Amino acid sequence: MELETLYEVSLKRFIILGSTGSIGTSSLDVIASNPEHFRAVGLVANGSADKMCEQVRRFKPEAVAMNNPAAAGEVRSNVDSLTLVYEGFEGMLELIEKLDADAVVNGLVGSVGMVPTLSALENGKDVLLANKETIVMGGRLIMDAVKQSGRRIVPIDSEMSAIYQCLKCEEKKHVKRLALTASGGPFVDYSLDRLRDVTVKQALNHPTWPMGVKNTIDSATMMNKGLEVIEASNLFKIPGSSIDVTIHRSSVAHSLVEFVDGSILSQISRPDMRLAIQYAMTDPERLPSPYGSIDFSKPFSLTFEPPDMERFPCLELAYEALERGGTAPAALNGANECAVEAFVNGDIAFMEIPETIGKALDNHHFIEEPTVEELIETDSEAKRHIAGMVNSP
Amino acid sequence: MELETLYEVSLKRFIILGSTGSIGTSSLDVIASNPEHFRAVGLVANGSADKMCEQVRRFKPEAVAMNNPAAAGEVRSNVDSLTLVYEGFEGMLELIEKLDADAVVNGLVGSVGMVPTLSALENGKDVLLANKETIVMGGRLIMDAVKQSGRRIVPIDSEMSAIYQCLKCEEKKHVKRLALTASGGPFVDYSLDRLRDVTVKQALNHPTWPMGVKNTIDSATMMNKGLEVIEASNLFKIPGSSIDVTIHRSSVAHSLVEFVDGSILSQISRPDMRLAIQYAMTDPERLPSPYGSIDFSKPFSLTFEPPDMERFPCLELAYEALERGGTAPAALNGANECAVEAFVNGDIAFMEIPETIGKALDNHHFIEEPTVEELIETDSEAKRHIAGMVNSP
Repeated sequence: MELETLYEVSLKRFIILGSTGSIGTSSLDVIASNPEHFRAVGLVANGSADKMCEQVRRFKPEAVAMNNPAAAGEVRSNVDSLTLVYEGFEGMLELIEKLDADAVVNGLVGSVGMVPTLSALENGKDVLLANKETIVMGGRLIMDAVKQSGRRIVPIDSEMSAIYQCLKCEEKKHVKRLALTASGGPFVDYSLDRLRDVTVKQALNHPTWPMGVKNTIDSATMMNKGLEVIEASNLFKIPGSSIDVTIHRSSVAHSLVEFVDGSILSQISRPDMRLAIQYAMTDPERLPSPYGSIDFSKPFSLTFEPPDMERFPCLELAYEALERGGTAPAALNGANECAVEAFVNGDIAFMEIPETIGKALDNHHFIEEPTVEELIETDSEAKRHIAGMVNSP
Repeated sequence: MELETLYEVSLKRFIILGSTGSIGTSSLDVIASNPEHFRAVGLVANGSADKMCEQVRRFKPEAVAMNNPAAAGEVRSNVDSLTLVYEGFEGMLELIEKLDADAVVNGLVGSVGMVPTLSALENGKDVLLANKETIVMGGRLIMDAVKQSGRRIVPIDSEMSAIYQCLKCEEKKHVKRLALTASGGPFVDYSLDRLRDVTVKQALNHPTWPMGVKNTIDSATMMNKGLEVIEASNLFKIPGSSIDVTIHRSSVAHSLVEFVDGSILSQISRPDMRLAIQYAMTDPERLPSPYGSIDFSKPFSLTFEPPDMERFPCLELAYEALERGGTAPAALNGANECAVEAFVNGDIAFMEIPETIGKALDNHHFIEEPTVEELIETDSEAKRHIAGMVNSP
C-alpha cells in the first residue's frame, strides 16, 4: 500500500501586491520553492526600489509597479527593458487589469488594499487576501463583487485560512460558532495600569509571529483580532454574536469551527505564514511543504483561555462596529490606522489608541449602505478625526 | 444576518446490533432525541432479555433478534405479537437481510461482528461501525465488499469519526500522516514493574470513557489503539508507517490528520460517544445536539505526548500484524480477545496479555489473501492457542 505522490497543480500565474513586505516576501519564497507550479508575473511595491530590483532579477516578472514615482524611475533604470514598470496607484490598477494572471496576492497594508481587491475581481482574477482591511471596510460590497465576478477570495492570514480549511465542504447552516485564536500579543498578562505605560518598543516585540509594524501594534492592542472578527463575519457569513475570540498563546491552533452538533474542527501547524499562503495558492489541491509540520515525537500542548475585554477594549470596539454595520467598520479601521501611527510616533499613549478610535467611531457620518467612494471618504474622515484629536492639546 | 436553522435530514431507519450494550444504548439515546429524523426498526442483542423488552416497549421496532435462544423465548412472551423475534446468529443475519433499513449500527463486541457487517453491505445497507474487529480481521476483504455494494462504512468510534470528518473532502493523495489520540488508559504513567502487578479492578477503571469490559481492558493495554491503527489503515487506505499514536489524556481532540503541506486538521469535542454516533447517522448533514460542545468561556488545554512502546507492547504488536497483513491482524485480534478474557478471569497477569498474543501471532497459520471462512478459522485458531497456553501450567 503506498501513498500516491502525484500532485496535479497546474502552473499558476500570480501578481503580488506588496511584494517587498512581509506577506510579499513570504509569497515569493513559496513561489521560489515551487517553480514548476507557480510563477510571479507581476510585482507591486510602495517605495523599496533596491529590493524590487533584486526581486525583478530573481523572479523575472513581466511587469512591476511602484507606488512612489521616484522609486519607479529608479527601478526602470536598473532592470532590463523587457520588464514593464508602472507607477503610482493608477499604475498598480493598470497592471492588475492588463497582466494575464490567475490570482492577485493582496499583501498591502491598510485601507489602500480595498480598491485593488475590487479591481482584481472585476478583471477576472482570484484574490489571495492578506489585506484584511479590504473586507473590514468593504464588507458586503466586496462579497457582492465576489459573487458577481464568479472569482474567489481565498484568505491567507492564518486564522481565516484555518476556518476556510475547516469549512471546505461543510455547509454554512451547519456552523454554530467560530473561535478565532489570538496569541494575545506581548501584553496579554499586563494589568490595566501597566498597559497605560506601555512603550512603542515593548509593543513592537511580538512573541510568535514576525510581521510589519502596523500588524504588530494591532496584535498588541488585539485590534488585529477585532478586525479578524469583522473579516470572518463577512467572509463566512456568520454573525458577530457567533464568533468568539480565544487566547491561544503558542499560535499553533489557527482557529476553530464548531458545528451545530457540537463537533469542532481546528487547523493546526507551527506558525509560518508561508503555509497559509501556499494553501491559498494550491487550493483545492495541496502541495508538499517544509513549513508547518509538528513533531509528534516530542510532547506539546495547546491552551485556550477567554480574552479580557476590559484590558483590550479594541476587541469590544470591533464587535460594536460589526454590529452597527454600514460605514462603522470602515471608520473603525481608518481610525485605528491613524491611531497606531500616532502611537508609534509617540503622540498618544497605548491605551489612548482605543479611546481615540471609540470617539472617531461614535462621531463619524454613518451610512447604512455605502458606495466604494463613501467608504473611502469614511476612512479619510476617521483619519482626519484622529489627527485632529492627536494634534489638539 | 442570521444562521439558517433548516435541517434537511430525511427520516432514516436503523438496525442496532448490540442494542443493550454501551454503543447500542447510546445509539438509542440519539434516536430518541431525534424522533423526526431517526427510527430504530430492528434491535439485536445477546442475552439481556429484560433490557430488550424495555427497549421494544420504548422504541417499537418491527423486529428484534436475541443471540441466546432462551432469551429469545423470554422476549417473545413479553412483547406484543407485532414484533418479530428472531433467534441465534442466523436469526440476526435474517433480520439484517429482511428488514427495510437505511443502515446497520454495528455495536457488537469482538470478532463476531465481521459477518453481520458483510451481510449488511450485501443487503444494500450502510454500516455505522463501532465494531473495529470487523475491519481489523477483514481488512481488504471488507473494503472490497464496500466497493462492490456501493454502500458506505461510516465509523462511529470517536477516533475514526474524527479522521472521517477531517478527510470529508480531502483527497487521499494529500494525506501525509494520521495521529490517533489515545487517553493512555489508567496505567499511562505506570512503570514496567508496576504494570506487572496490575489487578483486574485497576484495569477496569477507565479515566474518561465509560465503556464495556473488553474495550476498557483494551484501553489499559493500549491494544485498543493498536486495533485502531489497523482499522484506520484499512478504512482510509494509509500505510501503518504513516499512522502515529499520540497520548492525549483528556480525550478532547479525537485524532489529527496531517496533510502533505504540513497543515493538520483535528476534530475536537467533549468525550461523548453519542456525538460520533449522531454524526454517522446524519452524515453528510449535521443536526444540533447537546453532546460534545466545549465551553470557551473557561480555560482549557490539550496536551500530546508520544507513547512508550516498551511499556505498551500491544501497540507494537498491532503495527507488526498490520505490516505482515493477510491473516495476521485476525490472529492478533482473536488472540487478544481470548487473552483479555483470561486476564479478567484471573488466569494470566496484565503483562502476559501481550506476551501470549505475541506467541499466538507468531505461531498462527499465515494466509496472504484469506477468505471469510479462513479469517474465522484464524480467529478460532488464535483463541485455541491462547486457551492452550493459559490452561497448561
